[in-house]
Amino acid sequence: MIKVALIIASDTRSRGENKDETIPALKEYIKKQGWSFLGASIVPDEKDALKEKMIFYSDTEKADLILTSGGTGFAKRDVTPEATKEVIEKETPGFPEAMRMKTYDITPLSILSRATAGIRGNTLIINLPGNPKGATECLDVIKEAIPHGIEIIQGRLGTDGRTAEKLKQNRRS
Amino acid sequence: MIKVALIIASDTRSRGENKDETIPALKEYIKKQGWSFLGASIVPDEKDALKEKMIFYSDTEKADLILTSGGTGFAKRDVTPEATKEVIEKETPGFPEAMRMKTYDITPLSILSRATAGIRGNTLIINLPGNPKGATECLDVIKEAIPHGIEIIQGRLGTDGRTAEKLKQNRRS
Amino acid sequence: MIKVALIIASDTRSRGENKDETIPALKEYIKKQGWSFLGASIVPDEKDALKEKMIFYSDTEKADLILTSGGTGFAKRDVTPEATKEVIEKETPGFPEAMRMKTYDITPLSILSRATAGIRGNTLIINLPGNPKGATECLDVIKEAIPHGIEIIQGRLGTDGRTAEKLKQNRRS
Repeated sequence: MIKVALIIASDTRSRGENKDETIPALKEYIKKQGWSFLGASIVPDEKDALKEKMIFYSDTEKADLILTSGGTGFAKRDVTPEATKEVIEKETPGFPEAMRMKTYDITPLSILSRATAGIRGNTLIINLPGNPKGATECLDVIKEAIPHGIEIIQGRLGTDGRTAEKLKQNRRS
Repeated sequence: MIKVALIIASDTRSRGENKDETIPALKEYIKKQGWSFLGASIVPDEKDALKEKMIFYSDTEKADLILTSGGTGFAKRDVTPEATKEVIEKETPGFPEAMRMKTYDITPLSILSRATAGIRGNTLIINLPGNPKGATECLDVIKEAIPHGIEIIQGRLGTDGRTAEKLKQNRRS
Repeated sequence: MIKVALIIASDTRSRGENKDETIPALKEYIKKQGWSFLGASIVPDEKDALKEKMIFYSDTEKADLILTSGGTGFAKRDVTPEATKEVIEKETPGFPEAMRMKTYDITPLSILSRATAGIRGNTLIINLPGNPKGATECLDVIKEAIPHGIEIIQGRLGTDGRTAEKLKQNRRS
C-alpha cells in the first residue's frame, strides 16, 4: 500500500490566518485510490522549511509518495519547485508537463504552475497547486502512472514497463 | 496597463540585411490585447547583447513583459534560451511547453523551438519564434495567462489564482 | 541522407541475458524513413559507458542522429537522461515533451519517461523508451521534425523554418 505524506506550503495557513482545506481534500483522494495517509505538515513558503519536511518524510518516515501543495506560482514567496529541485536526485518531468498540459482545457491558467517532480531515494515527490480543486484535478491526470512509477523506483518492477526484473539492489527490504 | 518590450534576435536583421516584419506584427498584437508598447530592439544572435537588452528593459525600463523573438532554433548561432536562462531568477516552464504542444497540430515542426521563459524581478520574459506568424500563433496559446501571471509576480494577486492577498512587499509602488 | 546510430542502454541485454529486439525494429524504422544506418551498440546502464558511445558516434563517426533506447525510466540504474545532459551542448526540450504528451492517450504511463534530447556539434541526440513498441511510437510523434532539425543544426537551412541562409560557418564541409 502506497504511503503518502502531504506538505502544504502556505505562509497564511502556517500562521493560522487561513483555514487549510487541501489536506482534507487530499486525504479523501488518497483513500479513494487505496493509498495510505502517513502524515501532513503545513509550512511557510520558505525553501529551508520545505526541504527539511521533504527530507523528513522521505528519509525518516519512508514515504513512498510526497505530495506538496502550494508555492508553485509566480509570487516572490513561491519557492516550492526550487526547494524540490534541491532535494531530488532525478527529475521526472512527465508529471508536471502532463498536469499543466492536460488541465489547459479546464483553464489556460494551468500554465502558470511552475511545478516540478522527482525522485529522492525510494520516494517520489510531486508538486501540486495550492487549492484543493486544482490539486485534485492535477492528480486525476497522473494518478494511474504513480503506483507504477513507485514500483519501478523501489525495484519491484523493471523499467519501461517490462516484466519484473526484481533488481535485488533496489529493494527496500 | 501591461508595458511590453520587444527584443528581436537576428544577425541579418540587426545588420539591416533583412527587413524586420516581426516588430510591427507584435505591436499590432499588443495593441489588440490592450497592452502598451514600451520599446523594441534588434540585436545580433549573441548572448551578451541579448542579456544586456533583457536587463535594460527589466531593471531600467520596468517592463512588465519582455517578448523576445528569434534565436530559439537549432542553428549554432541560436542562443536566446541560453541568454534568457542566465538573466531570469525563476523558470516558468508552462509557457514554452504550451507554445510547443498547442501549436503541434498546426505544424509538427513546433517542437523545434527551444524557447524558455521566466521571471526577473517584476518582469516576465518569454521567448517567441522569429517569424511573425509563429510568434503570434504562440502568443494566442498563452495570452490569457500572461496578465494574471504578471499580477501575481507584482503582488497584486495571491498565488494559485486565489483572491488578492495584496502582498505589500511585492508591490511596485 | 541522415546517418543514424543506435545506442541501447540495458544491463541485461549488454550481458546477453535478454535478447535485444529494439535494434532490428529501429533499423527497419530508419530504413522506411529513407535514413541510413550507421551502427549500433548495446551498453550497460552506466553513465560513463553511455557518454563514451554518444561521443564516439557524434565526434568520430559523424552521426547526424543518435537514438538511444532504454534507461529513461524510474529505476535506480536508469541514467540515460543524465548521461545525455552531460554530453549535449544545447537542450531541445520539444522532442521529449512531445513524445510524452502525444503518447499519453496511448498510455498514461508515457509520463514515466524521463527522456531528454539535445545537440552535440552536428549531431542530434534523442532518448527513446527501451522497448521496440514504445520506441517506434515515440518516433512517430517526432519523425517529421527530425530531418528539418538536422538541416538547421548543420547550417543548410536558416533557423525558425525561414528560407536557407546557408550559414557558411555551420557547414560540415
